[in-house]
Amino acid sequence: MIERLAIVGVGLIGGSLARALRRAGEVGEIVGAGRSLANLERARELGVIDRIAAGPAEAADGADVVLVAATLGATATVLEALAPALSERAVVTDAGSTKRSVVEAARATLGPAIARFVPGHPIAGTEHSGVDASFAELFRDHRVILTPLPETEPRALATVRGLWETAGARVVEMDFGRHDAVLAATSHLPHLLAYALVGALAADEDADEVFAFAAGGFRDFTRIASSNPEMWRDISLANRDALLAACDRYTAHLARLRDALEAGDGDALAAAFARAKDVRDRLVVPDANARDDDDA
Amino acid sequence: MIERLAIVGVGLIGGSLARALRRAGEVGEIVGAGRSLANLERARELGVIDRIAAGPAEAADGADVVLVAATLGATATVLEALAPALSERAVVTDAGSTKRSVVEAARATLGPAIARFVPGHPIAGTEHSGVDASFAELFRDHRVILTPLPETEPRALATVRGLWETAGARVVEMDFGRHDAVLAATSHLPHLLAYALVGALAADEDADEVFAFAAGGFRDFTRIASSNPEMWRDISLANRDALLAACDRYTAHLARLRDALEAGDGDALAAAFARAKDVRDRLVVPDANARDDDDA
Repeated sequence: MIERLAIVGVGLIGGSLARALRRAGEVGEIVGAGRSLANLERARELGVIDRIAAGPAEAADGADVVLVAATLGATATVLEALAPALSERAVVTDAGSTKRSVVEAARATLGPAIARFVPGHPIAGTEHSGVDASFAELFRDHRVILTPLPETEPRALATVRGLWETAGARVVEMDFGRHDAVLAATSHLPHLLAYALVGALAADEDADEVFAFAAGGFRDFTRIASSNPEMWRDISLANRDALLAACDRYTAHLARLRDALEAGDGDALAAAFARAKDVRDRLVVPDANARDDDDA
Repeated sequence: MIERLAIVGVGLIGGSLARALRRAGEVGEIVGAGRSLANLERARELGVIDRIAAGPAEAADGADVVLVAATLGATATVLEALAPALSERAVVTDAGSTKRSVVEAARATLGPAIARFVPGHPIAGTEHSGVDASFAELFRDHRVILTPLPETEPRALATVRGLWETAGARVVEMDFGRHDAVLAATSHLPHLLAYALVGALAADEDADEVFAFAAGGFRDFTRIASSNPEMWRDISLANRDALLAACDRYTAHLARLRDALEAGDGDALAAAFARAKDVRDRLVVPDANARDDDDA
């Protein structure tokens, strides 16, 4: 039971966790802060939060747990603002899509409170945003990755794990570098590639005709190119090194396929395609619960 | 009205066109040929064809229209086999995913009958194959691209156009080179890229863990990597030049995004992402009819 939970950024993620904890009776007061007063007022109207704080510091004041669910670009500023207001026992966590960048910001701003900071990333989302899109079931059966630091207090880790498990999530722990590499491969790189493909085709002088013949495969392949550009700029920059490494591995692999194609080496192509099909069929499980996943 | 229609390859495409024409009362007898006798017997059992021919030549004998809906890899052999059996008025068409390769095979094998050959490509399909998967509505509101040659007789073109329009398709005409470039961009390249991404990730020593964190975006992006490897080997080789060109344009575009990322140029990334999102949102229309599209 958390007496007072502060949420900075009461959108899809922050709002959904608030709803899940409230429904489970695992939280007393929920205080919200954020950039959009209209969104915060809506959150209070919906009963997602009890009270609006003037800013991150005011929200953190007296809170037992602080969840930073702001955009990745704003996280460092938010941590810096709330740090001085943290009580000596307050646990802080976040929901950012990259973790090294957040850890660096936390180390630079939180001082001794870094021992009670638990970096986190729920692998869940929808194409909608804002508190109106939030719902208590968002995290059910979804994975949440926590990347505790060597200095993280076990109590802080247990508290944050408990939050997500109460919301129905499957919590796993991982080194933050590994998190960033895994997410670069499965999420950040596919977004970059989808943006690149649509961008490359859009440069065709008859782009309208080209897109007119796009069928279902193309639509699915490029769906993530309709994602929020600013959010993906922030994620790409925050995870630059891991994303560059993943991109270079991919480019090298594509170059081998391209060379096999140029050489007319049908056996090499068929073998590579069959290996990929086999891996995908075995390891990428269709998940009815994840239909609306955004994997940011 | 076609007195006798011959179909070589009575699978999803050939079977569905047969069903649509039959239902419309626009065909007399339908004769089928193909590699799998079991599939042909099933087609006769289902009433999709009336009679099984021993091979392409036997099917073409006395036929008014011959549809070659075999795999791309078999098309040249089929055309060569049926050519001597064609009557002087018989119209021949195909349903292959690439057109230059088919046109070259037709020019090499059909002799004077090339004037009655109409290359075609229905942009429709499902993940299933074989005559059991065929249905009369498959082509309704889908595009069919015809790529008539300079020597194509207007009567032959009108006959083939009529077939597809009877099946409910929207027929467009295009130069075969343009067809191959458009399909390379919107279909063949995305398949190559999806195979490349899954293949690159599969090379990770902890591939199982990596794929375990794949969410909805990754699933959609890589769905086409579960396509038939032999079919995509054949398509890739048959459309090699256009696919190489599309791949190189894409790679150059991706390299620019990669360089912007390495330089930390957030403005360039956001602008490129926003352009891609804008184009996709405007030009890639969600199409309920195309949910099950395979874009081969």
